[in-house]
Amino acid sequence: MIDFRPVLFIVGMLLSILSIAMCIPALVDLTAGHPDWQVFGTSAGLTLFVGVALILTNRVSVARFTVRQAFVMTTLSWIVLTLFAALPLKFSELDLTYTDAFFEAMSGFTTTGSTVIVGLDEAPPGLLLWRAMLQWLGGIGIVVMAIAVLPMLRVGGMQLFRMESSDRSEKAMPRAAQIAAATGIIYLGLSVAWAIMYWAAGMSPFDAVAHAMTTIATGGYSTSDGSVGHFDSALIDAIATAGMIVGGLPFILYLRVAQGDKFALFQDTQVRVFLGVVAALVLIGTGFLWLDNGLHPLQALRYASFNLVSIITGTGYATSDFYRWGAFAVPLFFMIMFIGGCAGSTTCGIKIFRFQVLYAAARTQMRHLVQPHGVFIPYYNRRPIPEDVINSVLSFFYVFILCFGVLAIGLGMLGLDYLTAISGAATAICNVGPALGEIIGPAGNFSSLPDTAKWMLSAGMLLGRLELFTVIVLFSRTFWRG
Amino acid sequence: MIDFRPVLFIVGMLLSILSIAMCIPALVDLTAGHPDWQVFGTSAGLTLFVGVALILTNRVSVARFTVRQAFVMTTLSWIVLTLFAALPLKFSELDLTYTDAFFEAMSGFTTTGSTVIVGLDEAPPGLLLWRAMLQWLGGIGIVVMAIAVLPMLRVGGMQLFRMESSDRSEKAMPRAAQIAAATGIIYLGLSVAWAIMYWAAGMSPFDAVAHAMTTIATGGYSTSDGSVGHFDSALIDAIATAGMIVGGLPFILYLRVAQGDKFALFQDTQVRVFLGVVAALVLIGTGFLWLDNGLHPLQALRYASFNLVSIITGTGYATSDFYRWGAFAVPLFFMIMFIGGCAGSTTCGIKIFRFQVLYAAARTQMRHLVQPHGVFIPYYNRRPIPEDVINSVLSFFYVFILCFGVLAIGLGMLGLDYLTAISGAATAICNVGPALGEIIGPAGNFSSLPDTAKWMLSAGMLLGRLELFTVIVLFSRTFWRG
Repeated sequence: MIDFRPVLFIVGMLLSILSIAMCIPALVDLTAGHPDWQVFGTSAGLTLFVGVALILTNRVSVARFTVRQAFVMTTLSWIVLTLFAALPLKFSELDLTYTDAFFEAMSGFTTTGSTVIVGLDEAPPGLLLWRAMLQWLGGIGIVVMAIAVLPMLRVGGMQLFRMESSDRSEKAMPRAAQIAAATGIIYLGLSVAWAIMYWAAGMSPFDAVAHAMTTIATGGYSTSDGSVGHFDSALIDAIATAGMIVGGLPFILYLRVAQGDKFALFQDTQVRVFLGVVAALVLIGTGFLWLDNGLHPLQALRYASFNLVSIITGTGYATSDFYRWGAFAVPLFFMIMFIGGCAGSTTCGIKIFRFQVLYAAARTQMRHLVQPHGVFIPYYNRRPIPEDVINSVLSFFYVFILCFGVLAIGLGMLGLDYLTAISGAATAICNVGPALGEIIGPAGNFSSLPDTAKWMLSAGMLLGRLELFTVIVLFSRTFWRG
Repeated sequence: MIDFRPVLFIVGMLLSILSIAMCIPALVDLTAGHPDWQVFGTSAGLTLFVGVALILTNRVSVARFTVRQAFVMTTLSWIVLTLFAALPLKFSELDLTYTDAFFEAMSGFTTTGSTVIVGLDEAPPGLLLWRAMLQWLGGIGIVVMAIAVLPMLRVGGMQLFRMESSDRSEKAMPRAAQIAAATGIIYLGLSVAWAIMYWAAGMSPFDAVAHAMTTIATGGYSTSDGSVGHFDSALIDAIATAGMIVGGLPFILYLRVAQGDKFALFQDTQVRVFLGVVAALVLIGTGFLWLDNGLHPLQALRYASFNLVSIITGTGYATSDFYRWGAFAVPLFFMIMFIGGCAGSTTCGIKIFRFQVLYAAARTQMRHLVQPHGVFIPYYNRRPIPEDVINSVLSFFYVFILCFGVLAIGLGMLGLDYLTAISGAATAICNVGPALGEIIGPAGNFSSLPDTAKWMLSAGMLLGRLELFTVIVLFSRTFWRG
C-alpha cells in the first residue's frame, strides 16, 4: 500500500502557498475599491484552513518519496490546487458556474489559455491578475517539475534530461532543490524584464505585469477579449513574440548561461531545431500572407510570426483571426499545435526533443531496412539514445495521438461539429488555448460548450500538461497492486 | 550499385500479365458492341510490347533478390503498372485527362476506391470491369506481397509474420511461391462465392462479378454513382458487409483452415481483436442512429454495420451519406479510417496487429514506470515481441502520422478547405476511398480537385499501400550509397 501522508503533507504545503498567492489579487481589488477583494480573502482563508489541516494531520518524517508517491503527488496536487484556485473565479462578480470556474482555473494552471469568460475588458482587476498568476504559477510549477520530478518518473523520455543534469552535477549546483530555486529566480527575472518592456512599449503597468506573466509562462491569458490584438502595436507584438520564444526554451540552459557557459543555449540541439522550425514556419506563413492574402511583406511578417509562434509554443495569444487567413492556414495551424517547444520550458505539446528522437529512430530504422546486418545507433545531442528512452518517446507519441483521438470522438459524440471537436481536443491536450472554427477559434470563446465538454477538455489539459503517463499510470491495476 | 536487370525483368513479366488482363474488358466491350474494345486492345498491345521488351533485354540468371532489389522492385512495379493501367481509362469514351486516369488507376491498384468518374451508371461495361479488375489484382498483389515480400523487407513490423510462417513451414507448404499460389486460389474462390451470392440476391451477373471483385479486395469501386446504395437491398448490404470482413482477415489463415486447422481463424488474436473492434463500433453506431437519428433499430444496424465496416476495412462503399449522420459521425468516421484490418489481408491503414503491438508496448512502458527495476515483456499472440518489431511498429506509427500531417498541410496549401484537406489525406494514406465533407465525402467525387492534389493523393495512396517505408527508403542516401 502507498503511504499517502507525505503526499497529503506536500499538497497541504502547496495549498498554503496558493492561499498566500490569493492575497495579492485581494489587495489589488481592495486598492481599486472593488468588492471582489472579499471573495479572494474568503477563498484564501478557506484554502489556508484546508492546507494547514493537511499539514498538521500528515506530518511524518520521510527521507525520500517512492516512485508511486511521486506519481500520486504530481497528479493529486495539480487537481487539488485547481479545485481551490477555481473558488475566487466561482464567487467573483462574473458569476461563473463551478464547471466554468474549474475549466478556467485548469486552463490557467496548465498554461493552456482557453477561456470561458466574455467581457475581460470590464472585469475587476483582481480577477484578471488571478488568471495571470495561475498561468505564471503553473509555468514555474511545470519547469520545476521537469527538472526535479519528471526525469525521476522517467515519463515520455524525460529521463534523457536526468542523465544530462547528473553528468554535469559536479560543475553545476549539486541538488535539484537548488537548481529549481535558481531557475525560479531566472523565471522571475525574465517576467520582470518583459513587464518593463511591455510597459515601455505603451501598456499600462497592470496590463504589462499581467501579460509578462502569461508570456513567459506561454499561457496566453490576456486582460482583453481582443487578446494582444487589442493593443494593436507592432512593438508589443514583437516583444510578445520574443517572450514566447524565450518561454519555449529549456530554463535549465538559462541557468548555465548565467553560470558562465555563454554558448549553452545555442550548442543545444533541441534549441537549434526549435528555432529552425519556428523560422521555417514563419517564412512559409509570411509568404502566404504576402502573396496569397496581399498583405504588405512587413505586415505579413508581423502577423505570421506572432500568431505562429503563439500556437507553436502553445501560448494562445492572437492578434488576428487566423482561422480566416484562407484555406492553407487551417490545416497548418492544426498541425503545429502538436509541436510545442523544448523540454524543460513552460510549453506543452509533443515537444521538439521527442520529434528529434522520433526522427533519429525512424532514420535508424530505415538504415536497418537497407542493411539488415548493420548496427545503427540513434543519436541525440551527439550522444547515443538509450533504448528505453526511444521506447518511452515512441510510446508517448502513440498514447498522445490515442488520447487526442478519444477526446475528439468524445467531443463529437456530445454534438460538437467536426472542426470544433477535432481542434478542441488538440488545443486541450497540447495546452494551446484557442482552437479553430467559429465557436472556439481565436475569435471565439469556450463558454458556449456543454458542461460535459468542459470537463472532458479539462481532463485533456491535465493529461497533456503532466505528460500523459503521470496521470494514466494511476488508472492501471499494477500501480495499486504491488 | 544495384543491378536493375532482374528488377526490370519482373516488371516486364507483370506488364505482360497486365496486358493479358486488358483483353478481358476488350472482349466484354466487343461482345456488348461497344467501340471501346479498340482502346483496350491497343493498350494491351502497347503494354505487351513494353513488357516483352523489358523481359528480352533484361534476362539474367539471378538466384535470389537482394534486399535493395526487392525494395526497388516493389515500388517500381506498382508505379509502372499504374502508368500502363491508366491508358485504357485515358483513351476511353469518358475522355479523362491523364492525371485523372492515373489517379483512378492508382486508386484501383491500391484498393482505395476514390473515384474521379461521374456517370458510372452509363459508362461502358469494359471500363467498369477494368476498374473492378484493377482492385481485384491490387488486392491479390498485396496479399502475395504480405506473404512473400514484406516480411523479408521487415517493413513496419511485418517481420512478425515471417517468423510465424517459417515456424510452421514444415507443417504447411514449404515455399513462399506455393503458399502464394494457394492463397491466390482461395482469393479466387472467395470472389466467385461472393459473385454467386450477389447474383442470387438480385444483382445482374455483371454487377455481381464487379462487386464481388471489389468486395473481397476491400476496394470499393462500384458500377453505380450511388455505390452499393444504388441497389437498396438489405440482403445485398449484409452480403457486402460479410465480404468486407472476410477481405479484412489474414488470407494465410484461410489456407490453414483449408488444410484442416479448423480453429486457425478464431485462435488468432489479431482476428479476435479485429472482430471485437468492429462489433463495438457497430454497436455504438447503431445506438446513435437509433436513439439520436430516430431510425428503426434494424435499419440502424443495417446502415451502421455496412458503412462502418466499409470505412474500417478501407473498402469505401457507401449506402448512406454518413457525413450527414450528425455531429458524432464525422470525428468517428475520421478516426476509424486509420484502423484498417488485419495484416495479410487486402485492407490498408495502420492495421490491427500494430495497435496490438503499440498497446502492449505502452502497457509494458506503464508497468516499467511503476516498477523501474522490474522486467516486463510485451506479448503478441502469446509470444514475446522481439525488440526490433516493437521499434519497427512504433516508427511506422510515427511516420504514418507524419506523412498524413504533411499531406494534409500540402492539400491545405493548394486551397482545399480544412475538412477536405484533412480527411482527403487520411482517406488516401489509409486507402479508404471516400473522405468527409461536401466535396469528396461519400456523396461526392474527387473530380473537382486540382491536378496537383490528385498527384499528391496518388502518392499518398502508394505510400499507404506499400507500408510507407518500402517507398521512403528509396529516398534515403544510405540506400543508394552502399
